Amino acid sequence: MRNRMVAWALAAGLATGMWGRQVHAETVAQVASPDGRIEVTLDLNGEGRLAYRVSRDGVPVIGDSRLGFIFRNARQLLRNLQLDGQTRRSVDDTWEQPWGERRFVRNHYNELRATFVEKDGDHRRFDMVFRVFDDGVGFRYEVPRQPALQDAQIVQELTEFAVARPATAWWIPALEWNRAEYLYRRTPLEQVGVAQTPLTLRTNDGLHLSIHEAALVDYAGMNLMRGGDGELRALLTPGSPVPVVRATPFTTPWRTITISDRAGGLVESNLILNLNEPNVLGDVSWFTPAKYVGVWWSLHLDQQSWASGPKHGATTDNTRRMIDFAAANGFRGMLVEGWNLGWDGDWFANGWNFDFSTPTPDYDLVGLAAYAKAKGVHLIGHHETACAVSHYERGMEAAFALFQSLGIEVVKTGYVCDAGQIERQDAVGGPVLREWHEGQWMSNHHLRVVQAAARHHLAIDAHEPIKDTGLRRTYPNWVSREGARGMEYNAWGNPPNPPEHEVTLVFTRLLAGPMDYTPGIVSLTGRNGQEIQSTLARQLALYVGIYSPIQMVADLPEHYAQHPDAFQFIKDVAVDWDESKVLAGEVGEYVAIARKQRGAPVWFVGAMNDRHPRTLVLPLDFLDAGRRYRAEIYRDGEGADWHGPARFRFVRETKTVTRGDHLSLWLAGGGGAAVRLVPVTP
Amino acid sequence: MRNRMVAWALAAGLATGMWGRQVHAETVAQVASPDGRIEVTLDLNGEGRLAYRVSRDGVPVIGDSRLGFIFRNARQLLRNLQLDGQTRRSVDDTWEQPWGERRFVRNHYNELRATFVEKDGDHRRFDMVFRVFDDGVGFRYEVPRQPALQDAQIVQELTEFAVARPATAWWIPALEWNRAEYLYRRTPLEQVGVAQTPLTLRTNDGLHLSIHEAALVDYAGMNLMRGGDGELRALLTPGSPVPVVRATPFTTPWRTITISDRAGGLVESNLILNLNEPNVLGDVSWFTPAKYVGVWWSLHLDQQSWASGPKHGATTDNTRRMIDFAAANGFRGMLVEGWNLGWDGDWFANGWNFDFSTPTPDYDLVGLAAYAKAKGVHLIGHHETACAVSHYERGMEAAFALFQSLGIEVVKTGYVCDAGQIERQDAVGGPVLREWHEGQWMSNHHLRVVQAAARHHLAIDAHEPIKDTGLRRTYPNWVSREGARGMEYNAWGNPPNPPEHEVTLVFTRLLAGPMDYTPGIVSLTGRNGQEIQSTLARQLALYVGIYSPIQMVADLPEHYAQHPDAFQFIKDVAVDWDESKVLAGEVGEYVAIARKQRGAPVWFVGAMNDRHPRTLVLPLDFLDAGRRYRAEIYRDGEGADWHGPARFRFVRETKTVTRGDHLSLWLAGGGGAAVRLVPVTP
Repeated sequence: MRNRMVAWALAAGLATGMWGRQVHAETVAQVASPDGRIEVTLDLNGEGRLAYRVSRDGVPVIGDSRLGFIFRNARQLLRNLQLDGQTRRSVDDTWEQPWGERRFVRNHYNELRATFVEKDGDHRRFDMVFRVFDDGVGFRYEVPRQPALQDAQIVQELTEFAVARPATAWWIPALEWNRAEYLYRRTPLEQVGVAQTPLTLRTNDGLHLSIHEAALVDYAGMNLMRGGDGELRALLTPGSPVPVVRATPFTTPWRTITISDRAGGLVESNLILNLNEPNVLGDVSWFTPAKYVGVWWSLHLDQQSWASGPKHGATTDNTRRMIDFAAANGFRGMLVEGWNLGWDGDWFANGWNFDFSTPTPDYDLVGLAAYAKAKGVHLIGHHETACAVSHYERGMEAAFALFQSLGIEVVKTGYVCDAGQIERQDAVGGPVLREWHEGQWMSNHHLRVVQAAARHHLAIDAHEPIKDTGLRRTYPNWVSREGARGMEYNAWGNPPNPPEHEVTLVFTRLLAGPMDYTPGIVSLTGRNGQEIQSTLARQLALYVGIYSPIQMVADLPEHYAQHPDAFQFIKDVAVDWDESKVLAGEVGEYVAIARKQRGAPVWFVGAMNDRHPRTLVLPLDFLDAGRRYRAEIYRDGEGADWHGPARFRFVRETKTVTRGDHLSLWLAGGGGAAVRLVPVTP
Repeated sequence: MRNRMVAWALAAGLATGMWGRQVHAETVAQVASPDGRIEVTLDLNGEGRLAYRVSRDGVPVIGDSRLGFIFRNARQLLRNLQLDGQTRRSVDDTWEQPWGERRFVRNHYNELRATFVEKDGDHRRFDMVFRVFDDGVGFRYEVPRQPALQDAQIVQELTEFAVARPATAWWIPALEWNRAEYLYRRTPLEQVGVAQTPLTLRTNDGLHLSIHEAALVDYAGMNLMRGGDGELRALLTPGSPVPVVRATPFTTPWRTITISDRAGGLVESNLILNLNEPNVLGDVSWFTPAKYVGVWWSLHLDQQSWASGPKHGATTDNTRRMIDFAAANGFRGMLVEGWNLGWDGDWFANGWNFDFSTPTPDYDLVGLAAYAKAKGVHLIGHHETACAVSHYERGMEAAFALFQSLGIEVVKTGYVCDAGQIERQDAVGGPVLREWHEGQWMSNHHLRVVQAAARHHLAIDAHEPIKDTGLRRTYPNWVSREGARGMEYNAWGNPPNPPEHEVTLVFTRLLAGPMDYTPGIVSLTGRNGQEIQSTLARQLALYVGIYSPIQMVADLPEHYAQHPDAFQFIKDVAVDWDESKVLAGEVGEYVAIARKQRGAPVWFVGAMNDRHPRTLVLPLDFLDAGRRYRAEIYRDGEGADWHGPARFRFVRETKTVTRGDHLSLWLAGGGGAAVRLVPVTP
């Protein structure tokens, strides 16, 4: 029997933010990683409150962290719990990616499933499932069907991450629940406000952590806020009437903690993908990883316009010219933005006016598709929704059928809206309600789009998307997305992306999944002459450094014509890989990544740098033994720098290397290097 | 016409958290305080976004801070605005409080009403009303009835407070939206997570600010989170389907910024009260400010119990003994907790079992009320709801009628719930939904209780309440509340309240309004011998330092018997005041307050200290000229300290003083002093 004193004492615990951390607790279950280094412990305290903690090599990484739910339509589920059984299993299998940073992925973990039930009252129950890998932990709630919990209106998921060591954080705020296009901040952990995930941490003793989620399906996105003891706690993206409404049975997304001594270990981890369900689409060979050109940079430069009129970019003539450019240089894709009706006027405020199937009068869609096809080029479809998402859902099936008939393989979608609300209208003429980019409703919307696209053998590249949580494993036609400040900020952003941006993205946003960053602006200049804070070589390094199975060749043809050496790398670089390794890197400072071309013995290395010049000495021990390689090196020239004319200082050189060699690369401030390593016959 | 470039540029602005702060803006309205030192400026930028800023003596205090709304059922209202007219007025009047820290309150401000309308689309409109006082600013949105905005579902109020100078913050987190009983944190402004209001700031150049709200009626409570540029922004307490649902016309609560060079200036400010509506109850002379005793501390010591059984505190005999104690010492009130049915079993989880009108069999309610009345004592009613608020609303009218018939004048209510949800059931047998202590629904619940109580000439003292926003002006029977860690934490809290706690409360929680802190624990000992971190003199100082028109004499009669000198002050101290002045103080360090007894020429001074001993030299220039006063000084004795037996070192001494004198008070660590100044005939 709980008396008032206990209740008040509980209140005291709440009040000091201790959440039972100072109350006597009993360990009820434990599970360790296959290599035994990472251990997860589940405790129940005297009040029956459940907490987990994580240690590595016996040292705490995540301290006692609570678990539970607050519902709108039922009493909270977090107290008065007892263990009702546990099971374990070990899995070690390897699966194949149809495309990706690597072909084969090992999925090796020990799993604990612990069932908890309320001691009295309604005896509600749920399972906590922990999967412990050698490089981190994933866990989720699994709530079975039960009489006392049939429909759950989840106000808060009380999941905590009590990081047990002082740390530096790289993060972007979750201010309006709708936007990811911020510059990353680097602050002490205690200065994190409300952050989006993935959140990257480096403890003061050098451990790297990434907190994120996997398999965000029919649930609200998880953000992180700091709690009473400085611990991070889940804050679900809002929804109506509550962030999440689910009927039982349901499972939450996996909450993930990737752990590595090396910053690069976070990048190499497959934990997020492994926690997603296998491919449900079957054969997806209709998607071909590829580079693409497009009517795009000219729009951001304001040389052309999305809207019709004298500056209209999506004209038949202009597109034909760009198709010729793609065909001449071996690029498979051709993106055209502004091709359809709806861009004229204030499209931003009137997404409901978009027509997703009808081209503008000056754009011969059918003729251009045929023209492209004859040259081995495929148009890339484009659908800006301006967040009128129900309108898009009504039009997408017909639009996708049209695209499929035209040989289109990829569709770029867009969800631009003003300070951000998604507009949902469940019935034509019904009320329009606002949703959030990362809310439950949108998690389902994106899957509806991806599934519809799959029926028409189309791949989706979503801009202003919901965050990536590894669903490309389950839906391999969800090939890329935006979800961070991309290259367009270098056209008109104030400020443009600083030299640190891309070397931060690799260790933050890219931990979620591929990003359509639209690299390769060899002209290094935005609107009104604004300098891009990058050297020329850095633009090439982006193709290797920032992974996406579709990579834009984003600059204008006339600009590539001025830089034929650099352009050669862009023509040569692969987009699909057998293997990827981070050779060197520190979050926000520099990174060097090596990737082996899918199905070929050719390696590529991309290195990128912050504003401080440095030399990286990279071992080439990833190369095959006994083979000689021609290293085609595209690097910063002497005196190169991210300011002024020096950013164009550039050297292309060739040398022969073997597995035993080291590659010494000097990187300018804001610089980079791109290397292609091709086996040579002896 | 807004084109895509502009839209993207806006996105860029959003992305860097600038919200137009770097965009050219035009000043459209200005208003200054009566003394001209504080100036508020309203700007519209090129995108028609509205921002305000505040300067004092020409130096920015609050930088460009946005205004606007995000709705669920309508497009956001924050962009594309133009000024459609402005009016101004000046007010200088003085009103009288029926009870309070001072009798007369001057209400002196300049008001700007600026009307904004959307340039196109639906041409929706709203007024911003700013009232600028010599000690701060209040502003609110007033949204008129209009065809395009009839029912507003407010997801976010985009009100910002971009504090323009580096500052230290004292704050408590808004973690679960339901609890105020935290220890206050002192951090740099940039480490504020999500904070409740009032939030207290001291800029590094010594300016004191308090951000809060006034007149929280039919709206969700405002919390503060940090935004993209480190600015604070409103975060409304959640509700369903959104934090606030209002039909137009409606006004928001006033958003307030109190500004003072002195910490004490925040305490002396009447800005919050002035922004509330005048008394709507008329004559409230049926409420008498008073001290009270009760069956309370014994419960927290676990010597007695709320529940029935051998330890039951609310028995006829025990209550009769306490009534005798109150009568013998001139205390008007007698609180009894645990007197009614519903406490047995797990009341905490079963608030729906409470009976608000039926006493336990061992408690002769009617007989005791008569016994008390015969001795000039009035029972204080007690209603714990355990957050079953709809159940309470159904029972309160009958319970209040019963209380009124028994001569009861004050009712203490309680809203204890576990990690916190209010339970609302709109129809008997209908679904139970969870609300939040500071949500819109509860803002209305509390007013329903206060209004029902007023009909029965009862005053309300709410514990675990919604925060105070000055509504005591409008409803003067809402006399006190809890809303912070009170004395009970010294009975069983881990940790108990540290020496800094009360000298922080004065400059934080108390800025909202009166607090029923339940002072006077002269035994200085909690459960199991736990030491209260206070000297004996400090317990007396609390009666002057922490304002409430009802003050508990909280310790047990047998404990007061052991400290007759100290008890004398508790018997003498007033509870209602003509005037209050802060003589000295720094947030979280120390404070000395002088108050003049209502209707008598007697002054009281209370001084309290953190853990560092110090001497305060206080000018007595508040005394009448030409009069001599007997200063009855209750102070820390030599060697007094907040640890061990030294906390009982205590001196009572008397001296004669005049207006020209200074009073030198040595305060021990965790110490204090209490002084009564009585005119003596020459």
